[in-house]
Amino acid sequence: MSALPFEAPELLSEHACFGGVQRFYRHHSREIGLPMRFGLFLPPQALELGARPVPLLVFLAGLTCTEETFAIKAGAQALAAELGLALLTPDTSPRGANVAGEAESWDFGVGAGFYLDASAEPWSRHWRMESYLLRELLPQVQGEFGLDARRTGIFGHSMGGHGALTLALRHPGVFASLSAFAPIAAPMQCPWGQKAFMGYLGADRCSWSRHDASELMRNQNRAPYPGGILIHQGLADKFLAEQLHPERFESACLAADQPLTLKREPGYDHGYYFIASFMAQHLRHHAAQLAAAGA
Amino acid sequence: MSALPFEAPELLSEHACFGGVQRFYRHHSREIGLPMRFGLFLPPQALELGARPVPLLVFLAGLTCTEETFAIKAGAQALAAELGLALLTPDTSPRGANVAGEAESWDFGVGAGFYLDASAEPWSRHWRMESYLLRELLPQVQGEFGLDARRTGIFGHSMGGHGALTLALRHPGVFASLSAFAPIAAPMQCPWGQKAFMGYLGADRCSWSRHDASELMRNQNRAPYPGGILIHQGLADKFLAEQLHPERFESACLAADQPLTLKREPGYDHGYYFIASFMAQHLRHHAAQLAAAGA
Repeated sequence: MSALPFEAPELLSEHACFGGVQRFYRHHSREIGLPMRFGLFLPPQALELGARPVPLLVFLAGLTCTEETFAIKAGAQALAAELGLALLTPDTSPRGANVAGEAESWDFGVGAGFYLDASAEPWSRHWRMESYLLRELLPQVQGEFGLDARRTGIFGHSMGGHGALTLALRHPGVFASLSAFAPIAAPMQCPWGQKAFMGYLGADRCSWSRHDASELMRNQNRAPYPGGILIHQGLADKFLAEQLHPERFESACLAADQPLTLKREPGYDHGYYFIASFMAQHLRHHAAQLAAAGA
Repeated sequence: MSALPFEAPELLSEHACFGGVQRFYRHHSREIGLPMRFGLFLPPQALELGARPVPLLVFLAGLTCTEETFAIKAGAQALAAELGLALLTPDTSPRGANVAGEAESWDFGVGAGFYLDASAEPWSRHWRMESYLLRELLPQVQGEFGLDARRTGIFGHSMGGHGALTLALRHPGVFASLSAFAPIAAPMQCPWGQKAFMGYLGADRCSWSRHDASELMRNQNRAPYPGGILIHQGLADKFLAEQLHPERFESACLAADQPLTLKREPGYDHGYYFIASFMAQHLRHHAAQLAAAGA
């Protein structure tokens, strides 16, 4: 492997898991200017001697979560091991920046980076989650662990669903498959999104629209994911009416001729029991599209 | 359903999960004299109108865990929903007793009840996990939720593996199937067990032997589980050499003519990534034996 322009990540812990390995790392982020942590599940297929590169699926977590949440709660490794998918789980914000007020809210600051680069003070120095993910973590992990960059997909939950949808739409060609669980699908229209955008981006609503999945989709000239996007939404989700607005993303997809499977699930709430229940459908959605991307 | 001699448990939360429901309850325990919490997963088969009673599998968790740990981390509900198994997860000790020193150690007192009735002061008043489980929680849950008492199995992890093995051997006929993950299999021979038994039972080692799985098995006249007991043990488990001693339980099973499948798994540690990796084998082990018990 050629020398990489990144410092090697430090292995914090590793756990044998379904014949593969669940690892947690820390590395210095140049984009963020602080140490960051991430989780990585490598399936058995990636551990074989002379293994060919396996596809990678990035999961972005929701408000208050960490790089560990998905690994512990989502129950994804069993099927990922079978399908031969690596799983990358970044943290949800910078930590340790000591910006005044960073820990005062559970929906802004620490644990709530919204997967964008802040342009407003005092957040713009460290809160650079988009550049961190796209320019640093993803290429570093793909290179360091010999993963197949052409076969990289992204999904996420709630704030991380917003992250997955917006990053996939803002960076054409980087991700070959896309899905989300209960995403914040129209953040300009909801209190969580308005608070985050006002804080991180300032009052200019034009800049907000570049980080709103429904606005981004509405501005597509052609379907960016012709193989289809998959979204699950629980109908007993207490955040659905006020914060999530999947129907706005749905109508934007219709306008852009983007195939969307939006599954509304009666009785399911916003948490990881919901996510785990439909995880297999998401992993199979990505595995099929990533296989097509590698063909 | 006939009136039960128990106060109805209070539902704290419920989450749709794989077509079934994961619930958490609180109830007053007469045996313990304090409120206790438990988790209950009901599979879809138990929620159908006019459903026939489904089998129940009790999982006892390890040191420091709660009634939530297994439900969140073990990834068991997917297959339990398919197999039609209810899952009951008790807490690991009384909480709120305010016994002096109860929270000074992570391996004794709160979160470390060892699934026995303490006979030594000051623990004997509240630390009555065995009577709580056998005389109160199990009959109450079986009755309240219409589960099949003949088809009840038990398993557990670490301290909870000790609990599963000892309770199954001390109460013949109550459990129709038995398995464990990395159990404390010979507690009289290890620091965790010696500390717990000295504290809860006092210095009389004769009373200790009635709560030691290997001693109990060695004293069987015939195989108590002729269908076999299943144990998984990770070989990278940092507690294996000093605390667990599965080889002692293995030789006791041999002496008692008790069929035992003891799977030693290279690379696996003591945590829930290990448990999740072999969960399907345990659920299928129980489902097969419980089906036979109901036939």
